[in-house]
Amino acid sequence: MERVLIIGGGAAGMTAASWIRRLAPNMKVTVLESTSMVSHAPCGVPYFLEGLFDDPKLFMTYEPSFFIQKRGIDLRVNAKVREIDVSSRVAKIGDENETVEFDYLIIATGSIPSEIKTDGKDKVFFVHHPAHAEELRKALWSLEKIAVIGGGILGVETSEALVSKGKKVVMIHHGSRPLNRMLDDDMASFISPKIARDLDMRLSESVLEVRNGGRTVITNKGEYKVDGTVVAIGVKPNSSLVKGQLELGIHGSVVVNDKMETSEKGIYAVGDVAQSTNVITGKPDWVPYAPVANKMGFVAAFNVAGLEKKFPGVVGTMITKYKETQVGKVGLTYEEALKTNMKAVEAKVQHKTRARYYPGSKDIWVKLIAEESSGRVLGAQIVGDEEVLGRLDVLALAMMKGLTVEDLFFMENAYLPAVARVWDPIVLAARKIYAGD
Amino acid sequence: MERVLIIGGGAAGMTAASWIRRLAPNMKVTVLESTSMVSHAPCGVPYFLEGLFDDPKLFMTYEPSFFIQKRGIDLRVNAKVREIDVSSRVAKIGDENETVEFDYLIIATGSIPSEIKTDGKDKVFFVHHPAHAEELRKALWSLEKIAVIGGGILGVETSEALVSKGKKVVMIHHGSRPLNRMLDDDMASFISPKIARDLDMRLSESVLEVRNGGRTVITNKGEYKVDGTVVAIGVKPNSSLVKGQLELGIHGSVVVNDKMETSEKGIYAVGDVAQSTNVITGKPDWVPYAPVANKMGFVAAFNVAGLEKKFPGVVGTMITKYKETQVGKVGLTYEEALKTNMKAVEAKVQHKTRARYYPGSKDIWVKLIAEESSGRVLGAQIVGDEEVLGRLDVLALAMMKGLTVEDLFFMENAYLPAVARVWDPIVLAARKIYAGD
Ligand SMILES: Cc1cc2nc3c(=O)[nH]c(=O)nc-3n(C[C@H](O)[C@H](O)[C@H](O)COP(=O)(O)OP(=O)(O)OC[C@H]3O[C@@H](n4cnc5c(N)ncnc54)[C@H](O)[C@@H]3O)c2cc1C
Ligand SMILES: Cc1cc2nc3c(=O)[nH]c(=O)nc-3n(C[C@H](O)[C@H](O)[C@H](O)COP(=O)(O)OP(=O)(O)OC[C@H]3O[C@@H](n4cnc5c(N)ncnc54)[C@H](O)[C@@H]3O)c2cc1C
Repeated sequence: MERVLIIGGGAAGMTAASWIRRLAPNMKVTVLESTSMVSHAPCGVPYFLEGLFDDPKLFMTYEPSFFIQKRGIDLRVNAKVREIDVSSRVAKIGDENETVEFDYLIIATGSIPSEIKTDGKDKVFFVHHPAHAEELRKALWSLEKIAVIGGGILGVETSEALVSKGKKVVMIHHGSRPLNRMLDDDMASFISPKIARDLDMRLSESVLEVRNGGRTVITNKGEYKVDGTVVAIGVKPNSSLVKGQLELGIHGSVVVNDKMETSEKGIYAVGDVAQSTNVITGKPDWVPYAPVANKMGFVAAFNVAGLEKKFPGVVGTMITKYKETQVGKVGLTYEEALKTNMKAVEAKVQHKTRARYYPGSKDIWVKLIAEESSGRVLGAQIVGDEEVLGRLDVLALAMMKGLTVEDLFFMENAYLPAVARVWDPIVLAARKIYAGD
Repeated sequence: MERVLIIGGGAAGMTAASWIRRLAPNMKVTVLESTSMVSHAPCGVPYFLEGLFDDPKLFMTYEPSFFIQKRGIDLRVNAKVREIDVSSRVAKIGDENETVEFDYLIIATGSIPSEIKTDGKDKVFFVHHPAHAEELRKALWSLEKIAVIGGGILGVETSEALVSKGKKVVMIHHGSRPLNRMLDDDMASFISPKIARDLDMRLSESVLEVRNGGRTVITNKGEYKVDGTVVAIGVKPNSSLVKGQLELGIHGSVVVNDKMETSEKGIYAVGDVAQSTNVITGKPDWVPYAPVANKMGFVAAFNVAGLEKKFPGVVGTMITKYKETQVGKVGLTYEEALKTNMKAVEAKVQHKTRARYYPGSKDIWVKLIAEESSGRVLGAQIVGDEEVLGRLDVLALAMMKGLTVEDLFFMENAYLPAVARVWDPIVLAARKIYAGD
């Protein structure tokens, strides 16, 4: 019986485990997960922090017993892998160095939060693993004034949660605008004032060090006295177990081919720990989001089971929200496109989500970026108060398939006055590039 | 100076007029519109009937003076064309048979409501042109018990409006389920009970005649006494002006090529009056909806102006709603797919619109139909309480471009717990066909 070992029981790992059991019932599948939670949703942590739900079990799609009993997976929680030897195919677990041997290995260890200089890092908070969400929430809810370092997706979602709980928040961000990796300057201007209304937003400011158990934040512009500090400056691939044994790429993510196989035959990497290829640029990319993680797990499972499937690459779809306003991006910003060797053009549309005569219409802004010569869509950004998600998916599909602004213009979009305008903002933005207006 | 005549000042006609003026400032553009309204939105009539807005001017994107003064269009309202002579390139207007000569003609006369046998048809009501909406609303609001004949989009939207105004409605529909041209039986079952809760819904029942000034409806199953009757059994192309002069196709729609040119050189047809080609089946089709009308107007304008653009065809995107529930369809239903020579498979997903832990989650059902051999997407249906529109657009784009369930599965969908689930229902339905689960 062939033995598959999966390290990490998050989205990617559990998807892989479930599909291998389904596709190859003869393989033994062991999953080792260092916390007590599996198939969990880190994406829910900010909303738990906001108090929108209270039962931490809701973080899990299924509990461990389900995978063990219903899916026949040898799942072990609270089993942290300390060491892997890729060439001799052995993993060591826990303090007693129990060993597990394998024929196939899937590394699904996710990401870890990026850190900042402190005088004792236990005293700053990270919004990351659901297994620590209860403890985190208890600590943060007891504070009054909180510094959030970072104004990307994680910083904005954490700030929203804390503001909603009545906390005084100072958000310190090195970028000149919040969400600067998602939005060009012009698009950020539609969301930035909404955030600034609720908290003390410090832009173009870099944190040098956090001192005094998280109560003093020192930046290149000054010093803040707070009750505690959340570090939300992003994540990096959790690849330390295989460093030196496998080829690593961007930010230390594990290099894989389109079967999710690493530089070592039979060793796969999936989810936040794995690198991928950007379909738009053709270059390596690293997209640590849940839908990508799940689909990578799916692809690896097929290949481990001997049934070929290929992961087509990524376009970098991102979405977040601040209060009622959703913000999304796919592909390249205009700023990013300028750094490639493609000549890019952009078009922006300010629009409404419903017919002019239909009550309750909301604002929406769509920006498209396309290659000038071919009209191929290179990027898109949307800021809006409803119906953002599906429009992002339209753009994601378009970019995955190399479609053009002409294709977007002629998409036979749905139109109902209660939920749309007849000239959809995507169609209008595409038209601006395709037909000059 | 070359003269372009456009008959009909609706969505298609005014789009064509505006773009010709922009692209070919040397052409003289005349638009003849039989009512007092142009660039109007028939789609808004049900909502006006519901009382969601009161100013009929809101039906118009722009008023006639805008087109005349700002866009330099020779627009004449209350100018009904009685006759066209295609070969000698003359149109006759009004009672005095004033004539207008042209070099290019664009027929944009839209559609007209299908009729039913009555003993005096002035006494039944049609929900159609915004120019008659005020009169219609006054009449219907004065009645108590109203028969609505038809349970398609128009019948459902009209019934919703009347029910919301507190009217007693009996909806009589020849199909075995409401919206039967959009939804297969299984999908209709998610919306049908919601409609039946509010009104007397009679299915599989055919109206034979309406008598007594709309107050008696006689069907193959019985007789209804009401205060008035709305006939909402659909529309047909308003092509009588050119019958015998141009080639006509489905339901009498004007046959055009991909430049929107009819069988006669220099004569174009756009919008509800024009036929198109279904991209999925490759066969002639007729899709009388506003986004199609606008894009046809756009394409005709480029070709009249000597700048080639091609209309790529249709996939038949439809959307409507009943109360909070939106219903949409793209491409073929399974029932329709069975009638082609393609072997089709289907998959259905019952899902929620938000993460399990996020408050306010709504129901959504997605059904996909694909060609078994290739996986090409042939059709899709969605019933759901939010975020239906954008998902329909994803499917419309996929079908316009001949994409497969594999492409849909690997679409890098956006995921935010507040507005989605990580396995989007489209991705899950695609997976069922692509991977068997
Ligand atoms: C606060 C937050 C909000 C987010 N919001 C969104 C969002 O809205 N949308 C979105 O698409 N994505 C979001 N993400 C990203 C998303 O959560 C990740 O992309 C996804 O969880 C990746 O899945 P994964 O299985 O690769 O890694 P993880 O979910 O991180 O799982 C990896 C697992 O491996 C375990 N592990 C690590 N090392 C070891 C070891 N040595 N031995 C045993 N087990 C180990 C970990 O305990 C963990 O359970 C968010 C992330 C965070 C932190
Ligand atoms: C009640 C209702 C609800 C609808 N809801 C939706 C919806 O939600 N979404 C959607 O996409 N579509 C909807 N539609 C369909 C949509 O309105 C049409 O597809 C669109 O209006 C077609 O545009 P058009 O310019 O081809 O025709 P029209 O808008 O019908 O315009 C044609 C114009 O030509 C004029 N005309 C006709 N004959 C002559 C003549 N002999 N001389 C001069 N002028 C003439 C007419 O007065 C009319 O103004 C709805 C239609 C109705 C009736």
